[in-house]
Amino acid sequence: MSSAAGHRTVLCWNAGAVRTLPDELACEEPLEIRARGRAISVTMRTPGHDEELAAGFLATEGLIRRAQDVIKIEACDRNEEGNVVNVLLAPEVHVDFQRLTRHVFASSSCGLCGKATIEAIHAKFAPVTSDMTISAQVLASLPDHMRQVQATFNRTGGLHAAALFDDAGRLLLLREDVGRHNAVDKVIGRALLDERLPLDHHILLVSGRASFEIMQKALAAGVPIVAAISAPSSLAAEFAEKSGQTLIGFLRAQRMNIYTHPQRVLVAAAAGNVCHQTTLPGELQETPL
Amino acid sequence: MSSAAGHRTVLCWNAGAVRTLPDELACEEPLEIRARGRAISVTMRTPGHDEELAAGFLATEGLIRRAQDVIKIEACDRNEEGNVVNVLLAPEVHVDFQRLTRHVFASSSCGLCGKATIEAIHAKFAPVTSDMTISAQVLASLPDHMRQVQATFNRTGGLHAAALFDDAGRLLLLREDVGRHNAVDKVIGRALLDERLPLDHHILLVSGRASFEIMQKALAAGVPIVAAISAPSSLAAEFAEKSGQTLIGFLRAQRMNIYTHPQRVLVAAAAGNVCHQTTLPGELQETPL
Repeated sequence: MSSAAGHRTVLCWNAGAVRTLPDELACEEPLEIRARGRAISVTMRTPGHDEELAAGFLATEGLIRRAQDVIKIEACDRNEEGNVVNVLLAPEVHVDFQRLTRHVFASSSCGLCGKATIEAIHAKFAPVTSDMTISAQVLASLPDHMRQVQATFNRTGGLHAAALFDDAGRLLLLREDVGRHNAVDKVIGRALLDERLPLDHHILLVSGRASFEIMQKALAAGVPIVAAISAPSSLAAEFAEKSGQTLIGFLRAQRMNIYTHPQRVLVAAAAGNVCHQTTLPGELQETPL
Repeated sequence: MSSAAGHRTVLCWNAGAVRTLPDELACEEPLEIRARGRAISVTMRTPGHDEELAAGFLATEGLIRRAQDVIKIEACDRNEEGNVVNVLLAPEVHVDFQRLTRHVFASSSCGLCGKATIEAIHAKFAPVTSDMTISAQVLASLPDHMRQVQATFNRTGGLHAAALFDDAGRLLLLREDVGRHNAVDKVIGRALLDERLPLDHHILLVSGRASFEIMQKALAAGVPIVAAISAPSSLAAEFAEKSGQTLIGFLRAQRMNIYTHPQRVLVAAAAGNVCHQTTLPGELQETPL
């Protein structure tokens, strides 16, 4: 059974100094909710309180109204990871599958878990092999560039942003949206329409957190470096590691955490401005719990 | 055609003083993406760059790889609001609808727009009529309560939280999740399993922004007051207004914006601590653009 947080080793860059540190990431895993023998939702969630999540989902979809509508909610014993829950509804509960407003996407027939989810994506999109590099100093300057052009956010405080930069740190494109995935789709869509794909010498910067889905979208466009102003999830880091993507979180003016594939980030040597590739005590690894 | 931001009048409470102010909200409206005569996605998005969003969605789903795969992307002229886009794919593009990983939910047959979306929800859930009230001072103290018990967030910086408070401002329940909607579902699911629904004398506090979907979930549970630490979207405010819900945004220790149904928020009079209901120059209204 998964827990709410996962542990990793990260490379922390702080005003030029680099250290490896242990870090905790919010856990993200798929959950399939089943009722009457059908998958009615697959959502990326943080494990824990899954029976509540299933009950709440059914209630907010209007399928159930009270505790008595549910006989039992239990983890499906055919899924070892605990990522499938069965809801046994009272016989009198009417379920109109057609009226579900929320997403119901194709259920994977085998074990539903982060690993299977990653493998399904890799069957569609090849890992990134780009040899692009960029200095940590340039990376650290990107959030300020982004904020300067976040027009609607500055007025409303209510939008996510996604920005595309080239390997010299130049801002090529910025889009805003109430949905973080939409902002990324808009950037990638513009790049595709402009015949710029694959974006193999580019950085995608997102204003909030980096989820699995953001990493998957970046991989589809061939982006080697994804940076987030806030935290990545555990599955985002795991996905990035296996996809050859450099994942950076908590990107600020004078610091950042590098979660995976740090070789693309050049660190200025203490004396002078010579850049060299980050050398690490071994590749960054997931720390066993 | 909608724009990226909507204008409203809000009631701003600042350390006891109350003013009405014009405010801009990030616009949120549904977008249906159609290809080969089928709806393949309905997403809540900020209008603008819809053709990019459609192209990016198709690319990140692996359906298209280059600009030549798309002949044309255009707004469907049967939808006046511009909330449906048709993607005309090149004949050689193979679309395997079964392999779409993302949500494809039932397309509304009539005009897809925020208004129709709200009406569809109201056909399932009655508006809130609760006469609960709470003082602004108590409301302003809730974010601190929430943060004190946000265990996983404090370690990872990567989780949304949803918390349920009673009408005396007591924290009843808090759940965290990488998905904001999941955190809300967990809270509502717990309350349902404990036979506490409807939550008609309760406040739902969310750590991030208030979207349409959050408001819809709160309505399903009968919650009269929804508060967000950050900004609400335009559709969240519109939905709250029509659902009888009090919507509060930017809730901080000494200030908040009240977007809809302010009668539930009691403001302490300047002299003494007598609470009285907020009186306004007319009900808060959407400002014509």
